[in-house]
Amino acid sequence: MIKVGIVGYGNLGRGVCIAVDKAPDLECVGVFTRRNPETVKPVTNVKVYKVEDLEKFKGQIDVLLLCGGSATDLPSTTAEYLKDFNTVDSFDTHAKIPEYKEKLEKVALENGTLGAISIGWDPGLFSIARMLFGAVLPDGNDYTFWGKGVSQGHSDAIRRIEGVKNAIQYTIPKDDAVNAVRNGLNPTLTARDKHLRECFVVALDGADKEKIENEIKSMPNYFADYDTIVHFISEEELKKNHSALAHGGFVIRSGNMSEDNGAILELGLKLGSNPEFTGSVLTAYARAVAKLSKEGKKGIVTVFDVPLKYLSPKSPEELIKGLL
Amino acid sequence: MIKVGIVGYGNLGRGVCIAVDKAPDLECVGVFTRRNPETVKPVTNVKVYKVEDLEKFKGQIDVLLLCGGSATDLPSTTAEYLKDFNTVDSFDTHAKIPEYKEKLEKVALENGTLGAISIGWDPGLFSIARMLFGAVLPDGNDYTFWGKGVSQGHSDAIRRIEGVKNAIQYTIPKDDAVNAVRNGLNPTLTARDKHLRECFVVALDGADKEKIENEIKSMPNYFADYDTIVHFISEEELKKNHSALAHGGFVIRSGNMSEDNGAILELGLKLGSNPEFTGSVLTAYARAVAKLSKEGKKGIVTVFDVPLKYLSPKSPEELIKGLL
Repeated sequence: MIKVGIVGYGNLGRGVCIAVDKAPDLECVGVFTRRNPETVKPVTNVKVYKVEDLEKFKGQIDVLLLCGGSATDLPSTTAEYLKDFNTVDSFDTHAKIPEYKEKLEKVALENGTLGAISIGWDPGLFSIARMLFGAVLPDGNDYTFWGKGVSQGHSDAIRRIEGVKNAIQYTIPKDDAVNAVRNGLNPTLTARDKHLRECFVVALDGADKEKIENEIKSMPNYFADYDTIVHFISEEELKKNHSALAHGGFVIRSGNMSEDNGAILELGLKLGSNPEFTGSVLTAYARAVAKLSKEGKKGIVTVFDVPLKYLSPKSPEELIKGLL
Repeated sequence: MIKVGIVGYGNLGRGVCIAVDKAPDLECVGVFTRRNPETVKPVTNVKVYKVEDLEKFKGQIDVLLLCGGSATDLPSTTAEYLKDFNTVDSFDTHAKIPEYKEKLEKVALENGTLGAISIGWDPGLFSIARMLFGAVLPDGNDYTFWGKGVSQGHSDAIRRIEGVKNAIQYTIPKDDAVNAVRNGLNPTLTARDKHLRECFVVALDGADKEKIENEIKSMPNYFADYDTIVHFISEEELKKNHSALAHGGFVIRSGNMSEDNGAILELGLKLGSNPEFTGSVLTAYARAVAKLSKEGKKGIVTVFDVPLKYLSPKSPEELIKGLL
């Protein structure tokens, strides 16, 4: 059995707990939290420890699944964990992945550990699709669509506006753009062409709603380049109708093999729960990290480095017979 | 530059020629044929040699792309080529892959060469999807649909019937089945539920068409378990309307992360030309074989063994920055 530890118990930690529990070859040693362990009640039957207790488990855990956020948690803590443990994380700030990797690589190589970074569905499965599709159809264009689903980053950006009590932002792909790509038209698409942004905002009592709406719609990077719809609703309504964690999207590559013949390659994901699916992907890569580390592999890997057979609990013979 | 040779110049060899020509890091040393080299006119500007001349190129070719068929060519010749060269092939007789691999593995290990087998889109990209989807969504069902496209095996089976001069068989996925799967209904589907078989047959003069139709429809394994439509047409009509090489299909996995939440994962391919796309996939794996062999890897690999980064001409840094 591969022994894993889960660091952090938010939505993602909960998703990992469920996925590890289902894996026939993984055993969860415990959930490690910065909160009071007595206040954390995991969905599966696993022990909860203070994160400081981790040092007592050195040598007893094959892989730590890091379930903190990408904004501050992972950049400030992963290097520490890598000194004593193999790790898997879902670091998803695309632009900062190279520096994140470089910093961690040093630590892992010095300590003989192995870390898999930026695991999940984007980065993760979508990256695999972009990489694979580009390699087998080099003359073409990539299109990535996200949604419909909640963007945590955009929701947070709205929450930082004065007068906003709470907010949820849905990223929604535009059908016209998706259909044009699927039909091989190879369109040139702006951010506005590809996605719609729909916001559900709870304003504080007496707040200037018109001002909030303008601030959202004109926010650079996040909203200014998009068609943005803003609804003001009550806190109750937000809790009741906008707590779902569904997400998904598509990676489509459209291009040509020759002057005469084209191809359209598509990966599509419909996810009932974003954190549960991300947790399931992290769990498969935890298995791979444990096996690769046992073979002597050290350093930092991404989805581009891990042979796919390592993700499965099945033997190579079973995989070839059943799935090839 | 990675130096490749192309063995065989049928539809697939032609597709490989085009793909190699487009690859910035591959150079084609030549096409090797069993025919009279003077009768072979490759679509790109490459030299044509007799296949017997291959021995003169030992040490001058990094990878051979084997473009023969799976029925007789590959099983009888790949082991010979592997004695002197690294190879890539598209062996697609699913049931016989394990024994094919075992036989070749011995030869490759003895001779220090590396072979990638069963490369293409099924087996190949579809196998990757089945493997990856199963690992990240272990509680679920796989559905593979093919078409609309010509099945060479089924067309050949019809051509063997007495009184048949020529024939083309299209495999067509049934919309009701595809939609049920996409909607997460997890249906139990028979062969008949999933695909329709449409046959265009040229009968010899005076042949008993009713008898031919009955023989097709009752042929075990190939047609008896399917709804089969048979059209009799002229040779001219067959050539004019049924020479296209388009194909494609879907791999869909539908399952659950937890009691509350499911997911549907789908890979879809629409291919303007089956042999050109297969040739393009073979070419990407030829690159991987050359790199892996240079690193000292020997034996036989499948798509489950090759880290995806090896498929791309881009550096690992470019891949991380641009695609992760």
